[in-house]
Amino acid sequence: MGIISLCTDFGTRDEYVGVLKGVILTVNPAATIVDICHRVPPQDVVAAAHMLRAAYGFFPKGSLHVAIVDPGVGTSRAIVAARCRGHLFMAPDNGLLPLAWRDTTPQEVVRVDNRDLFRQPVSQTFHGRDIFAPVAAHLSKGAMLKDVGTAIADSQLRRIDDNSPNSDPSGGIDGHIIGIDRFGNLITDIDATLLDQLIHNNKDMQISTQIGTHCIYGLVNNYTDGATGEAVAFIGSRGCLEIAVNCGNAAETLRSARGDAVCVKAAE
Amino acid sequence: MGIISLCTDFGTRDEYVGVLKGVILTVNPAATIVDICHRVPPQDVVAAAHMLRAAYGFFPKGSLHVAIVDPGVGTSRAIVAARCRGHLFMAPDNGLLPLAWRDTTPQEVVRVDNRDLFRQPVSQTFHGRDIFAPVAAHLSKGAMLKDVGTAIADSQLRRIDDNSPNSDPSGGIDGHIIGIDRFGNLITDIDATLLDQLIHNNKDMQISTQIGTHCIYGLVNNYTDGATGEAVAFIGSRGCLEIAVNCGNAAETLRSARGDAVCVKAAE
Amino acid sequence: MGIISLCTDFGTRDEYVGVLKGVILTVNPAATIVDICHRVPPQDVVAAAHMLRAAYGFFPKGSLHVAIVDPGVGTSRAIVAARCRGHLFMAPDNGLLPLAWRDTTPQEVVRVDNRDLFRQPVSQTFHGRDIFAPVAAHLSKGAMLKDVGTAIADSQLRRIDDNSPNSDPSGGIDGHIIGIDRFGNLITDIDATLLDQLIHNNKDMQISTQIGTHCIYGLVNNYTDGATGEAVAFIGSRGCLEIAVNCGNAAETLRSARGDAVCVKAAE
Repeated sequence: MGIISLCTDFGTRDEYVGVLKGVILTVNPAATIVDICHRVPPQDVVAAAHMLRAAYGFFPKGSLHVAIVDPGVGTSRAIVAARCRGHLFMAPDNGLLPLAWRDTTPQEVVRVDNRDLFRQPVSQTFHGRDIFAPVAAHLSKGAMLKDVGTAIADSQLRRIDDNSPNSDPSGGIDGHIIGIDRFGNLITDIDATLLDQLIHNNKDMQISTQIGTHCIYGLVNNYTDGATGEAVAFIGSRGCLEIAVNCGNAAETLRSARGDAVCVKAAE
Repeated sequence: MGIISLCTDFGTRDEYVGVLKGVILTVNPAATIVDICHRVPPQDVVAAAHMLRAAYGFFPKGSLHVAIVDPGVGTSRAIVAARCRGHLFMAPDNGLLPLAWRDTTPQEVVRVDNRDLFRQPVSQTFHGRDIFAPVAAHLSKGAMLKDVGTAIADSQLRRIDDNSPNSDPSGGIDGHIIGIDRFGNLITDIDATLLDQLIHNNKDMQISTQIGTHCIYGLVNNYTDGATGEAVAFIGSRGCLEIAVNCGNAAETLRSARGDAVCVKAAE
Repeated sequence: MGIISLCTDFGTRDEYVGVLKGVILTVNPAATIVDICHRVPPQDVVAAAHMLRAAYGFFPKGSLHVAIVDPGVGTSRAIVAARCRGHLFMAPDNGLLPLAWRDTTPQEVVRVDNRDLFRQPVSQTFHGRDIFAPVAAHLSKGAMLKDVGTAIADSQLRRIDDNSPNSDPSGGIDGHIIGIDRFGNLITDIDATLLDQLIHNNKDMQISTQIGTHCIYGLVNNYTDGATGEAVAFIGSRGCLEIAVNCGNAAETLRSARGDAVCVKAAE
């Protein structure tokens, strides 16, 4: 379909994203380029992985998702491309993709090494422009993964510990805030499946969500189910537990930051 | 033509806008999606209405304008779609559209309720992704309004008081600052027609614009008609009175904020 | 090819960029519009010129690059369009284009004056919407430069002093920081050619880069060639000297700002 999504930490105050698009359109003038986000915190591979994970499944099958958060640019770190769940992906081999796919094994992975497709000369500092963009454009025109690189096993991909929550011994769930959105909503890594288990195992008890010194009882369906200014917990649009303040900003009200612990338990 | 404009308060630091576009392209890969703005202040329906009003007429007839500023997401508030002046619109039924159209009656209005077109399951917190995006994509592919919802009367749409200015008893005009742009220009809701009347009725007098303790005499054609640092009043690109400081930032110089009163009179 | 790139100081919090695109699509619904950047500092013509210069060559030949940073909007300043190195350009006649092209003579220049192509009425404050957008759309549909304006000589274009560095008498190079990117990297106007000469003329000596009270010895290939927190100098992706701090923000670490002097010498 020729759709290429972009998720980077390039920001919007420089020309970097525009240059990327110029190179893509030079190779494939018919590409449809969609920005997922360019404001990933600089060099924050984990944040990019969570964002890509939340977004890619809403694009048409066959889309190519290019994620460039690349503290290792210019070092010997590889660039990889893959097919997973009917989507194509390209990113530095720094753990971003396996974290975005969590629990899913890609059908095909290659190390991108077909230098004939790169812009020449390849700079040491802007592989987005010189490698990612032209290779992405070729993939969007129908090149096969094997045309752009050498097959490797999924197990050869670098992994990062994503610190994902598990049930703790007491039966609760220990998670973290992995993102704060524009509205100040706190997005956790505690997904609905884990919560459903906890609820199922504790049928007659109430769920409580502890964040800092604040404790929220019960789950609601929606922001607006609390009183004005009240903090509520619910399953958000990413399929994970979120904490919001009705008509307010939860991050400010609860003085919360990314990385803060969130603990969910069954309470009397 | 398949053009869909987007005006939301989703911001640019999260994946929300990208997800919206992914869903649209899944239904209509040929859609042309244009961002009007995603930085409407969170939940500020009035600001979104003024922005949409300032922008929609510059798009081709037949374009679909999707405005999502939706404090009531997940409640029983309806989502509505309409045709007005040859353009299509979709927004929550929270007063946004009537304020954007001001004084114009839409030719056709529907309550969007054809659930066959929604993404399933519909989340409680992200109707942009689950309802607006797929329905917009169907409309951009040629679906009729009656295909996406049930006809209602224009009078059934919710309205918000837009506080729009009228001539005051003494013959002056009392308006407000409804926006401050990136350059610090103050945009009022006093439109050129009202001003023209005032000028017409007071042929031998000068116009004065009062804002806070500051008084600006006369109207100029342009920012640059004042001395450097001087505040000037003129008809801006929205067709309304604006106040600017030549080579400066009027909002900072005059310490003005959105909502501040602006009064225009004929003076000796 | 119908590609139009946009580089403006309109920002992203108002509807201005969306309006520009609406007008373009009204004239040429098939245009491919690419944002280079809309966050050029307000009215900073030099910054826009450096950005356009860094970006345009990465677009396909035949692309049209529209740069609107226009402190003189509504005055008698002209709007010009030109062909240079196989690309088309349009900008206010305020020195932006000659600085973007540096050392290259355009093949054709016109003063845009075919009012039949303008939106009517032409506002005094938003020529982007009323002149740039419709004329750009016509050019992207195949109009010739002579169809949109009157030929003028390149020498008639206004110039601004770009303060570009030359070798100083002692054989060093005096340049400036012309940009700071999102990562805090300091981008100078000292290009690789000048540096290569300095290195060539001083084969047995080391290169030192002086910025404020800080001195950086040698050139590296990449950000990551320094120790963590160390400032390094290298040829960046624009083909100019850049200064970065490995895993850090050079602008903050070195307390540097745009315009600061940077001096490169051969040292014992």
